[in-house]
Amino acid sequence: MENQNKDGVESGAVVRRGDHRSTVDVLLRVLAFALTLTAAIVLGVNKQTKVVSVKLADTLPAMNVPVVAKWHYLSAFVYLVVANAVACSYAALSTIISLNRKKGWWVPFIAILDLLMVAMLFSADGAAVAIGIMGYKGNSHVRWNKVCNTFGRFCGQVAAAGALSLLGSIVFVLIVALTTLRLHRRSK
Amino acid sequence: MENQNKDGVESGAVVRRGDHRSTVDVLLRVLAFALTLTAAIVLGVNKQTKVVSVKLADTLPAMNVPVVAKWHYLSAFVYLVVANAVACSYAALSTIISLNRKKGWWVPFIAILDLLMVAMLFSADGAAVAIGIMGYKGNSHVRWNKVCNTFGRFCGQVAAAGALSLLGSIVFVLIVALTTLRLHRRSK
Repeated sequence: MENQNKDGVESGAVVRRGDHRSTVDVLLRVLAFALTLTAAIVLGVNKQTKVVSVKLADTLPAMNVPVVAKWHYLSAFVYLVVANAVACSYAALSTIISLNRKKGWWVPFIAILDLLMVAMLFSADGAAVAIGIMGYKGNSHVRWNKVCNTFGRFCGQVAAAGALSLLGSIVFVLIVALTTLRLHRRSK
Repeated sequence: MENQNKDGVESGAVVRRGDHRSTVDVLLRVLAFALTLTAAIVLGVNKQTKVVSVKLADTLPAMNVPVVAKWHYLSAFVYLVVANAVACSYAALSTIISLNRKKGWWVPFIAILDLLMVAMLFSADGAAVAIGIMGYKGNSHVRWNKVCNTFGRFCGQVAAAGALSLLGSIVFVLIVALTTLRLHRRSK
């Protein structure tokens, strides 16, 4: 009887702890959804037109030409938008699944998909940051000039989208880490 | 007695299955070590000198100037070398730990470090591939010219290092996925 009681208390504690962990998991998924959605929108609407003065020949007067910077001109930014759009759709879907299926093969299935999101998002972050830094600083060795001195607002928006995407990626890392800790505790 | 036998057989099967999984885990770590080490070396020794013809003025004859391409001229390549060096050192260390500590808090600790390697390696892959593609194709919108037509061997070696690093990153994903599946099976 004493054992039964003890068991009862223990399993109750496990259930409560499990519920608490599950709530944290769902909250993190909602946060990941919000961050990746915002990152995709901030970069996806990014466009800046600037009028620059161009001289075709020394004898001719300078002409004012409008130059446009768009996010889809650089494939690294396209990849960042697509990766964040995929990750935010997945975050929404996995939140619904996590709320309904807490046991069985769904657990490792979702954990592995979470892991793939980490890989995809971090590769997109790396690509966008590399191109962003090149645009901000340029590189004299390969003669790629900086462009952020002309398109300041555009670059600022790229930086904001990159930071949001990085935060979203870190939240996915936390989700995977939390699942690992939960599975480890259950396996003991 | 029957129960005891049954338990004995079951736990034996679990141990054998656990041993098999552990062997796969160690083999994957050795593979990750080899791939990331090779990637770091292939890019870390990358250097190409090319003699190009430069005209300082129309009235002067063209001069032959040696131009050097080095991996550390581009920060994305520095990051790829450093990330692969860190990952290969970690792969060696975690192989030793995995062989000696198969239970306790080491399991989630190593799993979370594996996950951090995935994030670090994929961000480095993304950065290097983005800069590599830019060097290979250039971009007319930002007026960054391709450089791989001049430094063909250098670019080939960057591509090889990028591919090796990507394979190493995928092996780390497999290691994390395998740990998740093992923990899930144990938790049932």
